Amino acid sequence: MNNPGKASLPVIKRLPKYYRYLRTLKNDGITSISSRELAAQMGTTASQVRQDFNCIGDVNGRQGIGYSVENLLSILEHLLFGNGDLLPTILIGCGRLGKAVSRFITTDTNGYKLIAAFDNSPSEVGKEINGIQILHVDELEAFCAEHKPEVAVFCVPRSGAEELSGRLVELGIKGFWNFSHYDLSVPYPEVVVENVHLGDSLMSLGYRLRNQD
Amino acid sequence: MNNPGKASLPVIKRLPKYYRYLRTLKNDGITSISSRELAAQMGTTASQVRQDFNCIGDVNGRQGIGYSVENLLSILEHLLFGNGDLLPTILIGCGRLGKAVSRFITTDTNGYKLIAAFDNSPSEVGKEINGIQILHVDELEAFCAEHKPEVAVFCVPRSGAEELSGRLVELGIKGFWNFSHYDLSVPYPEVVVENVHLGDSLMSLGYRLRNQD
Repeated sequence: MNNPGKASLPVIKRLPKYYRYLRTLKNDGITSISSRELAAQMGTTASQVRQDFNCIGDVNGRQGIGYSVENLLSILEHLLFGNGDLLPTILIGCGRLGKAVSRFITTDTNGYKLIAAFDNSPSEVGKEINGIQILHVDELEAFCAEHKPEVAVFCVPRSGAEELSGRLVELGIKGFWNFSHYDLSVPYPEVVVENVHLGDSLMSLGYRLRNQD
Repeated sequence: MNNPGKASLPVIKRLPKYYRYLRTLKNDGITSISSRELAAQMGTTASQVRQDFNCIGDVNGRQGIGYSVENLLSILEHLLFGNGDLLPTILIGCGRLGKAVSRFITTDTNGYKLIAAFDNSPSEVGKEINGIQILHVDELEAFCAEHKPEVAVFCVPRSGAEELSGRLVELGIKGFWNFSHYDLSVPYPEVVVENVHLGDSLMSLGYRLRNQD
């Protein structure tokens, strides 16, 4: 296939894991790896590894040698992080969860740059979160017009999520890291949404513990 | 099929979302719904809804009326939460993320009961987290022998994850809510692992924003 723009969601969701493994291999001084070895380490199959790599670019393994770790890493780095440009990101909702998860951006970047944080609680507005002053949500329109953020880390209660997400889409937000229980992608199919539904995740775990053979 | 013990992982992952929607419907006084309406609200297809329900039990929709919301909710509640018994759970790693995510148990239960929290940092041990005193990880063995926790919320850095997860499996932990970057299910295929890899999730979002057509 070899068209990263058309890769399916399950393939895209596996790419960060490949990236993490390959980084470990590189740090350990390993320069090449077969699809079989990689699959064994990742708990998948060699055939899936080959299919996944086939989607993302010119990643030919060589018979008897395997894939070049360096080459795979450089392709994945480009796909996941672009040319090193960081996606301008705002945090919406500075409660305990918002504060905790935004550290995945402020500490590790992961390809993003946190440029502002918003809350509607008087007890939070004006405080700092990792060096960024928390603004009132009423300032969203003015801020977005000037700074053009592209991504929102969305950590608000369900009650406010519908109205706020609509405003954010209007203001040009293209991607949501969505921790709210509001299913954004139904009303806004054009935006990219990565849902992290922690309550759902706990319920799935419970199901498997209680019912699976 | 009608065997909840054999439901596939993608089906299991969708069940909490059905549960949340049906709760909303019930609160709104709606007593029945067709697969088509439910699918539209959830951003899926009627055929998938019917297949999913077919997996989990005796859930027959009636022509022209649809599914009984009450019946579906009671089946899902039983599957997700058992008979109301809470799974005894411990938190491993009481950093900012551990504190934030454990509130999904202490505040909403979601079918779990947090009975202890562990850390190895002298600055955390002895403090309280939602009314539970943080113990040193050295006390894990004694605690587990006495209280028999079944689930671990696993929020430790990758460096300590391998050793600690092995100890926890030895101590009888059957399920992991895994926030670490250690892929537990490869060495321990017999335990149930629900991975929440927040860094990976950010990378997938970045991929889609940077590459998708």
